[in-house]
Amino acid sequence: MDDSKIRQHISRQFNTELEEIRHKVLVMGGLVEQQLALAIQAFTTNDMETAELVMRRDNLINDMEVEIDLECTQIIALRQPTAFDLRLLLTVIKIISELEIAGDHAERIAKVAIKLSDTEGKHDQYHEILHMAELVKKMLNGALDAFARMSIDGITVITAMDEKVDLEYAGIVRQWVTHMMEDPRNITRTLHSLWAVRALERIGDHACYLCEHLIFMVKGEAVRHLSQQELEEKLNA
Amino acid sequence: MDDSKIRQHISRQFNTELEEIRHKVLVMGGLVEQQLALAIQAFTTNDMETAELVMRRDNLINDMEVEIDLECTQIIALRQPTAFDLRLLLTVIKIISELEIAGDHAERIAKVAIKLSDTEGKHDQYHEILHMAELVKKMLNGALDAFARMSIDGITVITAMDEKVDLEYAGIVRQWVTHMMEDPRNITRTLHSLWAVRALERIGDHACYLCEHLIFMVKGEAVRHLSQQELEEKLNA
Repeated sequence: MDDSKIRQHISRQFNTELEEIRHKVLVMGGLVEQQLALAIQAFTTNDMETAELVMRRDNLINDMEVEIDLECTQIIALRQPTAFDLRLLLTVIKIISELEIAGDHAERIAKVAIKLSDTEGKHDQYHEILHMAELVKKMLNGALDAFARMSIDGITVITAMDEKVDLEYAGIVRQWVTHMMEDPRNITRTLHSLWAVRALERIGDHACYLCEHLIFMVKGEAVRHLSQQELEEKLNA
Repeated sequence: MDDSKIRQHISRQFNTELEEIRHKVLVMGGLVEQQLALAIQAFTTNDMETAELVMRRDNLINDMEVEIDLECTQIIALRQPTAFDLRLLLTVIKIISELEIAGDHAERIAKVAIKLSDTEGKHDQYHEILHMAELVKKMLNGALDAFARMSIDGITVITAMDEKVDLEYAGIVRQWVTHMMEDPRNITRTLHSLWAVRALERIGDHACYLCEHLIFMVKGEAVRHLSQQELEEKLNA
């Protein structure tokens, strides 16, 4: 093979590697979405079998993070990519870390479901989180979809949802604290539930961080720590 | 200059860049240690001035993360390092992310201090966190020290401390839940305080993650998600 053919060949191989990485990130993201949905189901319906399934499956996500991280490192070392390709690989390393943490939070929600089933008290106070959970699922799904499309069009719609999530979270905390005050026998149960809803709120945060990493990947600009308004101004500039 | 001199020159310049990065990480780490110490002081002594100082200074840490992250990306793109140098730069990107999150948690503790000063109730129930805070400070300091020395000798001593931190945390939660039950008027105050002690516990976790990143840097092996025992076996093998 002459030089240009070898270069073409290497470049084709490199593109295949990048495609594989992207595919794996989406598989991992899909797993985290499933874990979130199952954890919420377990928590709101007191479904122990599902809670235990979530606990067992968390290590699949952990393993995928380790595997994809290693592959990105190897590709950077071997292919010495620059510009967009390098940003893509560095962004993937960050995205899978956010996904892994989101998976941990889903596992936490499942753990709370299991603890609650061992704790005395009423089992009917958790439906108020369903709407908040729908918002968080939409954020995570939207962020993964943006990664799949490699596009940040409309990404501020996703980050804007985090404010709604935070408001719903604050409302639920207020309501549940009132429950605690009305009947101190509810304290232990309600406290467990508060950890779960906190974990849900944090998954929303990590979906936002994922969006911020995507913006860095596409535009090469760091937007961490900007407010929603600053972010919108920057992206519409 | 002949070729070998140019190479020597580039390599000297590259080493200087790496040294500067390392230095900046240690400055950033020192800032996070200060923020943690100040946040704990503010929380345990109801010191509002210090709490507000911690809140104001968090953006210094955020800015350093963005700056160091960008520099690492640029060095990877320009110098195309391999082997240890590449692992060092990729590890730095992860370490500064852990430090930034630890800084956020310190800020959360300071926020709680401010909320508590606006909430009625007793101000004298927080000294039990001082011992736990000392452990977390030691973990963070030990992790940063290992990074400064670029050595993982004795690193399992740091990760082992996390189990002690978790035990102290569980004890404090149990004790404070009892307070809540004894006097429901304490519920709001105690709940705020529980968020603070949770944030402290999380800083310990991030000190552990920092150690895990260092192990990857030195040994090139991923040790995330190993238990303490598995980790000790692996490092002593």
